[in-house]
Amino acid sequence: MSIERRNRIGFEFSEGSGSTMQGVNPVTNTMIPDKFFIATPEDVDKAMRKAQAAFHAYSTSNWNQRAAFLETIADEMEALGDVLVKKASEETGLPEARIIGERGRTTSQLRMFASYIRTGNWVEATIDTAIPDRTPVPKPDLRKMMVPLGPVVVFGASNFPLAYSVAGGDTAAALAAGCPVLVKAHPGHPGTSALVGEAIIKAAKKHNMPDGVFSLLFDNGFAVGQALVGHPHATAVGFTGSVGGGRALFDIAAKRPNPIPVFAEMGSTNPVILLPQALKVRAKAVAEEYAGSITLGVGQFCTNPGLLFGIKGEELEVFKKHLKNAFVQTNPGTMLHEGIEKAFVQKSGKMLSEPDVAVLVESDAQASTGQGRPTVAAAKGSEFITNPALHEEVFGPFSMLIECENAKELKECVKALHGQLTGTLIGEPSDFKVHVSIAYQLQQKVGRLIFNGVPTGVEVCPSMMHGGPYPATTDSRFTAVGIHSIKRFLRPVAFQNTPQELLPDPLKNENPNKILRLIDNEYTTKSI
Amino acid sequence: MSIERRNRIGFEFSEGSGSTMQGVNPVTNTMIPDKFFIATPEDVDKAMRKAQAAFHAYSTSNWNQRAAFLETIADEMEALGDVLVKKASEETGLPEARIIGERGRTTSQLRMFASYIRTGNWVEATIDTAIPDRTPVPKPDLRKMMVPLGPVVVFGASNFPLAYSVAGGDTAAALAAGCPVLVKAHPGHPGTSALVGEAIIKAAKKHNMPDGVFSLLFDNGFAVGQALVGHPHATAVGFTGSVGGGRALFDIAAKRPNPIPVFAEMGSTNPVILLPQALKVRAKAVAEEYAGSITLGVGQFCTNPGLLFGIKGEELEVFKKHLKNAFVQTNPGTMLHEGIEKAFVQKSGKMLSEPDVAVLVESDAQASTGQGRPTVAAAKGSEFITNPALHEEVFGPFSMLIECENAKELKECVKALHGQLTGTLIGEPSDFKVHVSIAYQLQQKVGRLIFNGVPTGVEVCPSMMHGGPYPATTDSRFTAVGIHSIKRFLRPVAFQNTPQELLPDPLKNENPNKILRLIDNEYTTKSI
Repeated sequence: MSIERRNRIGFEFSEGSGSTMQGVNPVTNTMIPDKFFIATPEDVDKAMRKAQAAFHAYSTSNWNQRAAFLETIADEMEALGDVLVKKASEETGLPEARIIGERGRTTSQLRMFASYIRTGNWVEATIDTAIPDRTPVPKPDLRKMMVPLGPVVVFGASNFPLAYSVAGGDTAAALAAGCPVLVKAHPGHPGTSALVGEAIIKAAKKHNMPDGVFSLLFDNGFAVGQALVGHPHATAVGFTGSVGGGRALFDIAAKRPNPIPVFAEMGSTNPVILLPQALKVRAKAVAEEYAGSITLGVGQFCTNPGLLFGIKGEELEVFKKHLKNAFVQTNPGTMLHEGIEKAFVQKSGKMLSEPDVAVLVESDAQASTGQGRPTVAAAKGSEFITNPALHEEVFGPFSMLIECENAKELKECVKALHGQLTGTLIGEPSDFKVHVSIAYQLQQKVGRLIFNGVPTGVEVCPSMMHGGPYPATTDSRFTAVGIHSIKRFLRPVAFQNTPQELLPDPLKNENPNKILRLIDNEYTTKSI
Repeated sequence: MSIERRNRIGFEFSEGSGSTMQGVNPVTNTMIPDKFFIATPEDVDKAMRKAQAAFHAYSTSNWNQRAAFLETIADEMEALGDVLVKKASEETGLPEARIIGERGRTTSQLRMFASYIRTGNWVEATIDTAIPDRTPVPKPDLRKMMVPLGPVVVFGASNFPLAYSVAGGDTAAALAAGCPVLVKAHPGHPGTSALVGEAIIKAAKKHNMPDGVFSLLFDNGFAVGQALVGHPHATAVGFTGSVGGGRALFDIAAKRPNPIPVFAEMGSTNPVILLPQALKVRAKAVAEEYAGSITLGVGQFCTNPGLLFGIKGEELEVFKKHLKNAFVQTNPGTMLHEGIEKAFVQKSGKMLSEPDVAVLVESDAQASTGQGRPTVAAAKGSEFITNPALHEEVFGPFSMLIECENAKELKECVKALHGQLTGTLIGEPSDFKVHVSIAYQLQQKVGRLIFNGVPTGVEVCPSMMHGGPYPATTDSRFTAVGIHSIKRFLRPVAFQNTPQELLPDPLKNENPNKILRLIDNEYTTKSI
């Protein structure tokens, strides 16, 4: 099966100016032969114009049509079978089993959004009926619902070649909302991106979606991304990646004549608080679980636990012993691409060169080319509070144990933390009684608070909050995972004294889709 | 009753560095004797530290306590009686009847939020129960709810000395959410601000709210506002005012090391589309209604209709005749303060100096000092499409009739519009049949679409959307009016595998407040 190497400008193709880029197999560190055409600013403009032109038809398409479109994207992805699995594995170094799991997550997300938009709950229909004889002035008829923002720019993530890339969570949420999507493929996996892009185009054509509902652009630099975010027709941005990358896009969007929202899911060290009683009763189990969590997927998860905090004492010493025992047995793994591996070596090296930071344990096995060697460092709580460098994320299988003199210092450490996707408390009921203020303090810093578990493993369900205060994301008010991530790409519109025939279906008296609505302050599925 | 002239740093006072500022009576153009102390950067820092310290206690306060606090603020405002009405009227030139009406709106908003937070719906409780035996991995117990962001900075608005100032919509929403509030008083009405500020402090003390839950700072320059928005403890900003002011705050917030959301409700020309058949059957009534709407409150509403669009022809000529007849009878009125009046004269003068823009009609009566003279200008549709200057808001009793050659040009005009708070269609059923694409086009530009009415008059109810695409606001995803405006100051937090006793009440199995929750994808008020 040959891979489409051209940019997708809606249903058309572009070879840009003829310049090309190639993926790299990180295991063998060799170029993959397929040459992908790099998009030009003209391609961006054309794709945006098409998206804007498609917006009317797409935003007003029937929910069932849109849901079927999403389901067909999932079907088409599955129909790619082994070709997709092998290509994604080749381009990222991730094992095929992981890719198969991630494909399952991706298609589930698409189907989840299909089901969700059919419920109609996402439009948050709200109606206040008129009171024509109210004094001193009549009360008008007012009806409000969520409508799509407009064309959405999505950046493929390096660490999720499927679940947060071309047809990943951001794309699924935006398409579900009724927004055309323009994806900037991640240069780390152009072939995977092209395969999934063609699956989306196929699905769009099958369902007679308008040309421009989806575009896919290649670039191994920053020009295409910048042009997309700066384009007058862009209305929102979804991004998963580094703080540097996310912040750069946020800054471009904020400086536009008309600023647009950027939802960038960025850096997180996912602190874990190890409370004494828990270590007393189950240090070995916790140590083994964390040796696994720190090295899962070569540490390349945004929820990787990069910081462990404990209070000095016998319990912590026992934990350290068990962590060492478990950790030496972990294995280096091939990282997603050379850039990430180089950054891992550089950042972990820099961290270990900070005052009072030392290696606690490494995997016994040395890293081969392109691999990251699992490492846990150790530092003092007092150092963590005063040295901002110790708060930086080291993306990869690296974690640091912060040893605090006492509970007070531990609380100060938590207070000093940046915003985080997750925070975890490992404790027994007696621990929580003593350290309840630490739990509250941690909650202020995070989007998800975990008790006695690991932060890796992000359940896709309505109650998930995958987001958090800066720099975890650029807008803590939204999640990037689960049905509510659709809210990022919607805005409310009120209709005042609108004739029935001009109202969108969700706001019509008869409630044709029998959705849940807030009518005169009461939730009901009844008609009016 | 003497007025407190010091800054309120929580329950303490500050005279800053001793510098003072005074209000001005815009009717007499004389200084009002009371001298208010200008806050210093140290005051800002102290108030912010207090707000941050108060956040824990306030954010975890019982809903009923918070609701009672809001209700007492309303009571205390009413207890100020005539003193407040006369002071607000003196400082703004607004008639006492208008102030009384606005006070009613303000106290209603406070009580509306009190009722709303008692329903518990605002926490959007979402629960997914665990499936311990799921394969390949167990499903954790996940529960999500909205929590307050942290200290919120509110800027008092010049045109709503009560409803969008010290205890106005932004403050009510933020306090309801559980966020401490720091208000920068508008320099146009410091006495009104002080009176309401003391009412809030009284209410806070009555309900044993923590010191720092509310602060009030005076400044007649930009330093205090900039320091507030730039302060590390600030987590969100509410603002109502000019595009220049709102954008300046947005830019400060976006450049912070950790950017924070700014909800600025800014400029809008509130376009009105006059469709031919409607003018044929009721030109006189529409003209009279709009003469009233354009001059209501001396045109000082963010929803003032600043642009009227019509298609050239007999119907439009008849409308123009009626508008002239009605408009010459309107009266100049005193504007809120000298700065606003001067800007009105300057901006309306500049508009009238643009090519092809001419006066259509003015009030017969001339303006006295400090007054704005009602004016309607006229320009061609082709000019509107090509000259960006014609899109600028002229804050005050000024509107411009854009005469289009045909429906196509009218649609192009609508396409060329900036984002707006409102858009209005005046039409008969036959008009809407012909011009349905104009209605859709207008909807893309606005937060509220009005049929056969005037944009002035913002109903405070759940279905209201007071917001819109830039420059109407800096974030079209939120409303500034109604219960849902609370969403601006909330963020979701997920709790994973959390022991019952550590869960916030809304997420506990027993559902102690019997609130509506989404449990395993079904809405229910049941316990688990």
